[in-house]
Amino acid sequence: MPILVMKFGGTSVADLDRIANAAEKVKREVERGYDVIVIVSAMSGKTNELVNWVETTSPLYDAREYDAVVASGENVTAGLMSLRLQEMGVSARSWQGWQVPINTTSAHGAARFMSIPRANIDAKFAEGFRVAVVAGFQGLSAEGRITTLGRGGSDTTAVAFAAAFEAERCDIYTDVDGIYTTDPRISPKARKLDKIAFEEMLELASLGAKVLQTRSVELAMRYNVRLRVLSSFEETDENSGTLVCGEDEIMESKVVSGVAYSRDEAKITLFTIEDRPGIASAIFGPLAEAGINVDMIVQNISEKDYDDAHTGAVTDMTFSCPTNQVARARKAMEDAMAAGLIKYDDLIIDTEVAKISVVGIGMRSHAGVAAKMFEALAAENVNIKVIATSEIKISVLVDRKYLELAVQALHDAFELDKA
Amino acid sequence: MPILVMKFGGTSVADLDRIANAAEKVKREVERGYDVIVIVSAMSGKTNELVNWVETTSPLYDAREYDAVVASGENVTAGLMSLRLQEMGVSARSWQGWQVPINTTSAHGAARFMSIPRANIDAKFAEGFRVAVVAGFQGLSAEGRITTLGRGGSDTTAVAFAAAFEAERCDIYTDVDGIYTTDPRISPKARKLDKIAFEEMLELASLGAKVLQTRSVELAMRYNVRLRVLSSFEETDENSGTLVCGEDEIMESKVVSGVAYSRDEAKITLFTIEDRPGIASAIFGPLAEAGINVDMIVQNISEKDYDDAHTGAVTDMTFSCPTNQVARARKAMEDAMAAGLIKYDDLIIDTEVAKISVVGIGMRSHAGVAAKMFEALAAENVNIKVIATSEIKISVLVDRKYLELAVQALHDAFELDKA
Repeated sequence: MPILVMKFGGTSVADLDRIANAAEKVKREVERGYDVIVIVSAMSGKTNELVNWVETTSPLYDAREYDAVVASGENVTAGLMSLRLQEMGVSARSWQGWQVPINTTSAHGAARFMSIPRANIDAKFAEGFRVAVVAGFQGLSAEGRITTLGRGGSDTTAVAFAAAFEAERCDIYTDVDGIYTTDPRISPKARKLDKIAFEEMLELASLGAKVLQTRSVELAMRYNVRLRVLSSFEETDENSGTLVCGEDEIMESKVVSGVAYSRDEAKITLFTIEDRPGIASAIFGPLAEAGINVDMIVQNISEKDYDDAHTGAVTDMTFSCPTNQVARARKAMEDAMAAGLIKYDDLIIDTEVAKISVVGIGMRSHAGVAAKMFEALAAENVNIKVIATSEIKISVLVDRKYLELAVQALHDAFELDKA
Repeated sequence: MPILVMKFGGTSVADLDRIANAAEKVKREVERGYDVIVIVSAMSGKTNELVNWVETTSPLYDAREYDAVVASGENVTAGLMSLRLQEMGVSARSWQGWQVPINTTSAHGAARFMSIPRANIDAKFAEGFRVAVVAGFQGLSAEGRITTLGRGGSDTTAVAFAAAFEAERCDIYTDVDGIYTTDPRISPKARKLDKIAFEEMLELASLGAKVLQTRSVELAMRYNVRLRVLSSFEETDENSGTLVCGEDEIMESKVVSGVAYSRDEAKITLFTIEDRPGIASAIFGPLAEAGINVDMIVQNISEKDYDDAHTGAVTDMTFSCPTNQVARARKAMEDAMAAGLIKYDDLIIDTEVAKISVVGIGMRSHAGVAAKMFEALAAENVNIKVIATSEIKISVLVDRKYLELAVQALHDAFELDKA
């Protein structure tokens, strides 16, 4: 029988009623003829309770014990979901990570998949079981310890199972009903997309659309796993939600598919640095070591004149990072200066910026997208502070106060409200 | 290094403070030079929460899923205890049942130990780990599923580990500070015992003293594991609590060690049954099939005359069972009558009785204990309804209203308040 993977996040299994509701959706897919692998998160709030106990007990905790404690939340949901399905007449059993086994690296708290052997679960399907309920977010290290996968680990588990079992599709049930052209809270004209390409979703995910974790989309793209995002809390059918898939499945795509934003960005500029080979690595090496997520990077020709202190060519370097990493970024730069690795006249931090991006695979074959974007922003008097582009997206930093205005203007300019 | 097993029940690990308190006790034993195996229960209330979820989700639950869900409570405590010990500078790691592995039968919810291989934990001790924190109450079936051991399973786990690892002792930390000559709530003269023999403890445990589960005492006796019962909530040292041990360790024992009672007993009498070979099995076979825990059994010569309906000798049969099994017992008897297996004139149930027992290994070599017991009860005008004896105990059923009076009278008569 064809295999379907269905994933339910924490709010979708928050209590027994919601578990029952999710089980109904699973049953429907079984009736449609699928063998189903269900990936479950912990009931919402449970993981926080467990994390809090661990951190209170041991602030600098042993990550192996952290994982052993925290993974129990998903195990509970898996058992309860299996029981609920059985109660509805569906033959199901629960699987903890070590029982599958979900083999991972030993990087506790941020483990990565090594292999998911199919044999055990396939044997149960062959026996007539129709559903395998798998605890998400966890695995087994070569040392026989329980691992967890880190943020978004349940989505990633779902995609990994879909790849390993060659599933027809991986349905991610969540608290929104799909992927929108932009955040509906910012633009009431936002429209739900029927389909979106992996590459676009990846840009949207990493740019701040919170629905899917970047890592799960990457994995889906690599193994060509068709992902569907849909709501746990509404009636759903084969056409619900948004399908994230390869470009080949998308007949006619618009040039721009969506407008993403990231509110908490900071812009850091180093003025008057030497313009020499190796200067970029002298700056970004220390930032990487300090764990700063540098996003946009722009190097300008300095407008300043040479002075006595600078005997060579000079330039300015601007980069962006999340606002909560600004203090660490400043320290990394000051330390690098003190260590003689870099030299700058001034370090200016602007924490009042936001990033707006337009994303679309159609950009590859269409010129003029950037011009249209800048024009739309100019028409609203929104000043652009930094520009960065990739093959399928254009991102700008603007003053944060213009965020809503800019998103709405771009949504209108690219007519994203029209199908 | 010598190995010590320490077990902490649910109230002893009810919250993070109590886990920390228990960890202090573990650390002290490590400092005394022991390698320690700690067996933990779920934080109190957690198991009930999980059981409630399971029963609400599926009233006739799949016991394998029940076990998978419920066992998670102990896993959480094991991780937290290990973290707490690490935080105190003690090298510890947690062990879930499948990691040891604790091999059990597949009787989910009431599994029995098959084997506890030492290799994995011994290897960690050899590496320098000083504490293995093991989740109690659980194991692994040959099918790779999580099992639970049923009532008192954590005590049993502790004893089984003590046997497998040839531990010097198995300390059971609980909410009382030892085994008493009787229930202190009933007799203020109750005295804590320093030592008690396995056989005595077994009689006391099965007779209603709630401190240790029968099964764990049986296991301790079989493998000669020295058990110590002591309080989690008091300062304890090498001499705290009560040691449950072989008779050879008890120098001079009193004839009677304690007075036990069981409040919720019922007495059932079948009048005028045939007095023929096989009649007992015709009665107690159906009761066993119905799951009735028959305790005392007394067969009397009937005082009734022969009548037309009975052509052979007749007798009466009396037995006792817990009050909450009376309805089932009556039905089993009525069904057996309807099926023609047995025949009786009347079935009389008395649910207002209690069982009082005096227990002591010294009885084996001392006559007159029964006489002294009956005399003491007679002096208080307590009528004895049924008597049953074993090598080291004498039990009587009395009207429940006399329970406290009878316990106190016997405690005085055998001078149990004196060491």
